[in-house]
Amino acid sequence: MTRSAPRHYTFRADCPARLAVDIVGHRWALVLMHGLRDGPRRPSYLRLDVGGISSKVLTQTLRRLEHTGLVERRRYAEAPPRVDYALTDLGRSLLEAFEPLAVWSQEHADAVVEAQERTPNA
Amino acid sequence: MTRSAPRHYTFRADCPARLAVDIVGHRWALVLMHGLRDGPRRPSYLRLDVGGISSKVLTQTLRRLEHTGLVERRRYAEAPPRVDYALTDLGRSLLEAFEPLAVWSQEHADAVVEAQERTPNA
Repeated sequence: MTRSAPRHYTFRADCPARLAVDIVGHRWALVLMHGLRDGPRRPSYLRLDVGGISSKVLTQTLRRLEHTGLVERRRYAEAPPRVDYALTDLGRSLLEAFEPLAVWSQEHADAVVEAQERTPNA
Repeated sequence: MTRSAPRHYTFRADCPARLAVDIVGHRWALVLMHGLRDGPRRPSYLRLDVGGISSKVLTQTLRRLEHTGLVERRRYAEAPPRVDYALTDLGRSLLEAFEPLAVWSQEHADAVVEAQERTPNA
């Protein structure tokens, strides 16, 4: 990391820059974006690749990501018509910014589970 | 960033390493952890510092963070008894891993708002 965000501004609860938290907080958003990391994918492929997501939630999440400018929906005038989704530059930059948290998760999952076993339920 | 997480494992929806997403996805978790960045704080101080959080949600979130091993609750045998909260090493490492996402938010908030204005509501 070479830069720091001005801390107070970023973390205020009412701050527009809490954006990343809101995006990342949606269970499927990052999973689907990650599924697009190697190139455009059709919704049916994504659904199988990711696992455990219903068609409805898949569609909703992709629309939301499109609305946020993180993925792009492309329609091809073929018969039958084909649709696929691709990461935008913005989406790719978000995925990259998420990487340290992914690494953190992998390194500390055990520590969290241990803490949860040690302390009473919250 | 010097390391990469094995990508597929981390992002599978059913993967324990999606931990960070679950933690970070809670509206107040990161805000409160950030409020502890400069040292231990009493709940009443945190509440004023953060703004917009009820006592109840403050208490619930702090308990949850304690349960997850990210903050530590300390009781002092004074009169009246005093309680404060501090980040654990684990909590501090999570906050640091979140930093690139905070930077991303600040840099790209405008782009997201523009995208949301351009595309139909999802």
